[in-house]
Amino acid sequence: MKFVTFRRDGGPRLGAQLRDGDILDLTGVSGGDPVFGSLLSLIDDGPGALEQARKWTEAAQTGDENVCHATDVALCAPIPRPRKNVFCVGMNYRSHVEQNARALGLPTEIPDTPLFFSKPVTAVIGPGAPIVLDPRLTEKLDYEVELTMIIGRGGTWISEADAPGHIFGYTLANDVSARDLQSRTSQFFYGKGQDSYCPLGPAVVTADEIGDLAALDVELLVNDEVRQRESAGNMIFSPATVISRLSRGITLEPGDIITLGTPGGCGYQMVPTAFLRDGDVVECRAGGIGSLVNAVTAI
Amino acid sequence: MKFVTFRRDGGPRLGAQLRDGDILDLTGVSGGDPVFGSLLSLIDDGPGALEQARKWTEAAQTGDENVCHATDVALCAPIPRPRKNVFCVGMNYRSHVEQNARALGLPTEIPDTPLFFSKPVTAVIGPGAPIVLDPRLTEKLDYEVELTMIIGRGGTWISEADAPGHIFGYTLANDVSARDLQSRTSQFFYGKGQDSYCPLGPAVVTADEIGDLAALDVELLVNDEVRQRESAGNMIFSPATVISRLSRGITLEPGDIITLGTPGGCGYQMVPTAFLRDGDVVECRAGGIGSLVNAVTAI
Repeated sequence: MKFVTFRRDGGPRLGAQLRDGDILDLTGVSGGDPVFGSLLSLIDDGPGALEQARKWTEAAQTGDENVCHATDVALCAPIPRPRKNVFCVGMNYRSHVEQNARALGLPTEIPDTPLFFSKPVTAVIGPGAPIVLDPRLTEKLDYEVELTMIIGRGGTWISEADAPGHIFGYTLANDVSARDLQSRTSQFFYGKGQDSYCPLGPAVVTADEIGDLAALDVELLVNDEVRQRESAGNMIFSPATVISRLSRGITLEPGDIITLGTPGGCGYQMVPTAFLRDGDVVECRAGGIGSLVNAVTAI
Repeated sequence: MKFVTFRRDGGPRLGAQLRDGDILDLTGVSGGDPVFGSLLSLIDDGPGALEQARKWTEAAQTGDENVCHATDVALCAPIPRPRKNVFCVGMNYRSHVEQNARALGLPTEIPDTPLFFSKPVTAVIGPGAPIVLDPRLTEKLDYEVELTMIIGRGGTWISEADAPGHIFGYTLANDVSARDLQSRTSQFFYGKGQDSYCPLGPAVVTADEIGDLAALDVELLVNDEVRQRESAGNMIFSPATVISRLSRGITLEPGDIITLGTPGGCGYQMVPTAFLRDGDVVECRAGGIGSLVNAVTAI
């Protein structure tokens, strides 16, 4: 299944994307049952709610009062307001590690342990919302497409073998980064945590539909030019390993969002460097998850 | 005023600490009004709710049905479940910067910009709850007492002059840190973000009652031995500067928690080093905020 969060008559509603791109308003179909009011509450409710949503989606027909044309609704981030910061993994593709080392004049060191940091909830924006370029703060605004997982079942000390059962689904994030702010101190938080620096979406595809990550290309385009493209199978630490390592001592909870690192091709890694400018259109895409498009807007 | 969150007959309730240490059950006095159900909802409601709480507190008498003896209740963290990760400032006392450099064999560099990172909400524990020592993860468990502010009014690009008006009050945090995990990657998140690594409390004292930070000593004791003691006036970046710098591009919201850095005297800075061991009792204290006591418990 593909879940989206969208606006129709006011506040955000939970929807299922149908094969033709139309959206079934699950909040509407359920008669306003709070379980189907948001993706977080559906995840909280467990497999029963997912199964019910699947049945409604399979039964949906064009013309039903709760089936909306994609062009009639506005998508939000699938989880517009996470309950905690977004977990992020850095340095998780060899291409990124190598290009980072070259750009910074450092030796290439492939990590033997995942690098974790976070982005505040206020950084999250949805498809179509502007990525803010604030010239008071940065001259080096950059992009990073990242396959992103949504935790379905929480836990601590989750084994790699059990980890796949804890993944609800996948979406995309753009780990927008002000490189000059990011390197001003040792910690990434401020330079990657600015308002609008975490576009998320457009859909959350359930883990069963994603299938083999080796067959999933993750791509990023700036003004239709491909800047990043790599198989998600090339991650140094797989989603299962990330869950296993992060949950050693840090309890994961349903609805947690974990970005999985970006491949090479970032603006600071290009020769010459190519940072984002006012009006640039940034598109992240990956198979059935779809396209997450955000324009850069100077303020 | 001094606010606490405490348990009495089930779930957490909001209380006001009275002069004699007794606690006025504000949730009870209000007849269950949700505004007085938690510190977050009181802060959300604004100055009116604070004024009402103050009136009830001034009128409270020993023997009133809503006045509880301190020994009859169990304190929780003042905000048991924050709405986002706790913001943290590192390297904010000269004594800490100098002792850190000496311990790590690095040159002393006094920062000219605040260093920000975060601790996940799952790390927060209250007074009396155990700090977990997991020997599978760390042999270098350490403490850091930190004066901590609670944001009352949100905003972005808040000026230093306006910043004091955005502070609701102050509490204490122990920025518990596994030094071996902290230094395993460049990012502090995993080594400082473990479950139980953010004791908070015991009370939130409103900013008007805290007064001059130069007169406030922040202290930490391990088994009654003073390890850290310094005036909060010695911070490199004052609370107003921290708000001003953090809110450049990151929107602050009511209820946000920002720890303000620790002075020297951490376990890894001692000669010889002195890390926390099973059964150690760690006490953070600062003037009217009181004592935040947590025992280290090996699992």
